[in-house]
Amino acid sequence: MVAAMRAKGLEAMVITHPADVRWVSGFTGSNAAVALMGGRRRLFTDGRYTAQAKEEVQGLSVTIAKKPVAQEACAWLEKAGAKLCGFDAAVTSVAALEAMKQAVSGKVRRGFFRAVSGMVVRLREVKDTDEAETMRQAALLGCRVYDEMLGVIEAGMTEIEVAAELEYRARRAGAEAMSFETIVASGVRGGLPHGKASGKRLARGEMVTLDFGVILGGYCSDMTRTVYLSRSARFSHVEAEQKKTFDAVLEAQIRAVSAVRSGVSCAEVDEAAREVLRTAGLEKEFSHSTGHGVGLEIHEGPRVGAKQAQKLESGMVITIEPGVYLAGKYGVRIEDTVLVTEAGCEVLTPSVKSWMEL
Amino acid sequence: MVAAMRAKGLEAMVITHPADVRWVSGFTGSNAAVALMGGRRRLFTDGRYTAQAKEEVQGLSVTIAKKPVAQEACAWLEKAGAKLCGFDAAVTSVAALEAMKQAVSGKVRRGFFRAVSGMVVRLREVKDTDEAETMRQAALLGCRVYDEMLGVIEAGMTEIEVAAELEYRARRAGAEAMSFETIVASGVRGGLPHGKASGKRLARGEMVTLDFGVILGGYCSDMTRTVYLSRSARFSHVEAEQKKTFDAVLEAQIRAVSAVRSGVSCAEVDEAAREVLRTAGLEKEFSHSTGHGVGLEIHEGPRVGAKQAQKLESGMVITIEPGVYLAGKYGVRIEDTVLVTEAGCEVLTPSVKSWMEL
Repeated sequence: MVAAMRAKGLEAMVITHPADVRWVSGFTGSNAAVALMGGRRRLFTDGRYTAQAKEEVQGLSVTIAKKPVAQEACAWLEKAGAKLCGFDAAVTSVAALEAMKQAVSGKVRRGFFRAVSGMVVRLREVKDTDEAETMRQAALLGCRVYDEMLGVIEAGMTEIEVAAELEYRARRAGAEAMSFETIVASGVRGGLPHGKASGKRLARGEMVTLDFGVILGGYCSDMTRTVYLSRSARFSHVEAEQKKTFDAVLEAQIRAVSAVRSGVSCAEVDEAAREVLRTAGLEKEFSHSTGHGVGLEIHEGPRVGAKQAQKLESGMVITIEPGVYLAGKYGVRIEDTVLVTEAGCEVLTPSVKSWMEL
Repeated sequence: MVAAMRAKGLEAMVITHPADVRWVSGFTGSNAAVALMGGRRRLFTDGRYTAQAKEEVQGLSVTIAKKPVAQEACAWLEKAGAKLCGFDAAVTSVAALEAMKQAVSGKVRRGFFRAVSGMVVRLREVKDTDEAETMRQAALLGCRVYDEMLGVIEAGMTEIEVAAELEYRARRAGAEAMSFETIVASGVRGGLPHGKASGKRLARGEMVTLDFGVILGGYCSDMTRTVYLSRSARFSHVEAEQKKTFDAVLEAQIRAVSAVRSGVSCAEVDEAAREVLRTAGLEKEFSHSTGHGVGLEIHEGPRVGAKQAQKLESGMVITIEPGVYLAGKYGVRIEDTVLVTEAGCEVLTPSVKSWMEL
């Protein structure tokens, strides 16, 4: 953190984005700001969190603020002698910056705040050993829940019922929460890339896409599997086109996972998946990026998409999730979360991803 | 909307905050911007949402954007002849505004964007008949789940297990999601105003606070109850102090609900609760505001707190949730969601709130 600030010529910084605050301080409350000035670090929160801050915050002093936390943080920085204060322009609203400006005196206000975009978010991309272990555990919890669900999912259930059963098992297994609204998209609803669970009933002969994540120790897991509901217990009668589409997505996913390695660009990983789907004539139906970073937030850097020149680094945790969406017909998406290493990557979500008939 | 814009002297406006976008357009996807120009209304989203936008958006044209949606919206507004464009400074980041500026040509950029804070959010405070009905249904769903939970909660369960059972029932009953991370705070953890469910087991002789909400039709419910786990089936042996604290919070809550009426200020409602707790010598332990607006987001305006001069209006939906937190001992909070009317209010969360022993 200090090195990153020095590289930007910053002696002081104010951090307000909740995930950034948590990463820097350990504090999980909903209202806090962190002020950094030289070696001094101070967290500002409000009276609701007095006990919680005492419990969670390590290595920072704590102030229970009367005024808005960001304003108190900035006033404190000025008093501590700061002449220049960095803030994250990507997560600070225009109104919040104006309020921060009002919190410092007129004589330093001009030029006091310098916009830096995503500095903490950028540092958060590379996970340390403890973070990687937490994410490994979160991902495994997700896999256990998914594996259980294979014995639960059946034709006749509504998508919401599937989501309810899944989330119940996740919670019972120790998940603090879900990473995002669980996606259960069956049959034609699979043609929507982000089909949240609905009242639609699962039917035989349909593909069903499950995309979900659990939060453990504050860190998000993320995985997607698509399964097929057989038309009968003895014969699958799967349509050749469905199976072909699935195979193409699976190959794209495996190729992209194989392309992951420290030093490789995000665009190269994306292209590894996209090339397979292009060859299969499905490029247009793959309407999103191959993946994204994940950590304290479900969507973090890096972006694993076309034209993303950013290079992968050991310790980054990213998703690899190509998908194909045939509007009005069905969809397939397969997603793993992987930890980037020097030699390649560790797949954190080892649940079976090959063709499966339930 | 048009009237509100006219009142601010705006012919054009760009809306990017997801709940605002949903309120204006019906669109529920995660990436969209709405441009308003005179009578013209256009929604910009990306390729993932082509089908969904077609399904959901009414009364607006739709553009599937190649570039970031807010930038395409601003470029479209310039092309449509706008000279001045409002944006919400409270929900637009400094970096997003900079990107929007880059999207319009140099000759109009200067003075093109005018900050208006919370204009759509302000309009969203007053619910129309359909919204009120949706919120009534959401609140009732929450109450049904709570009533069921009274037969489920028992000593020995962990807080997370209680949350899991509650969320499972909510989902099965049709909730799209929970409004926020379910709070289950038992015994000493009740002393934390925002004690998310933990691995702690419920024990006899403890107070247990449940604070949760469900989402239905996009709208959030919010309710809190505190119950007591009896020491034995025949005798409650409740400590006099616990019961006294509970009674004070309940009285404060009832007084505040009684104070709600169109035309009354938020500060008056807050004071109605605070006065009771002051008299009981518990003012310092009531460390937050009495309530907040609720709707498409779990926290909206108005703020029902001390010094809030804003007047309540018919159609506003607010929470009334005084609480007392005795660090290291226990806590009590009781919360209803109410719909403001001319004559008073309609309590949307009619579950029993008086002293209850399980």
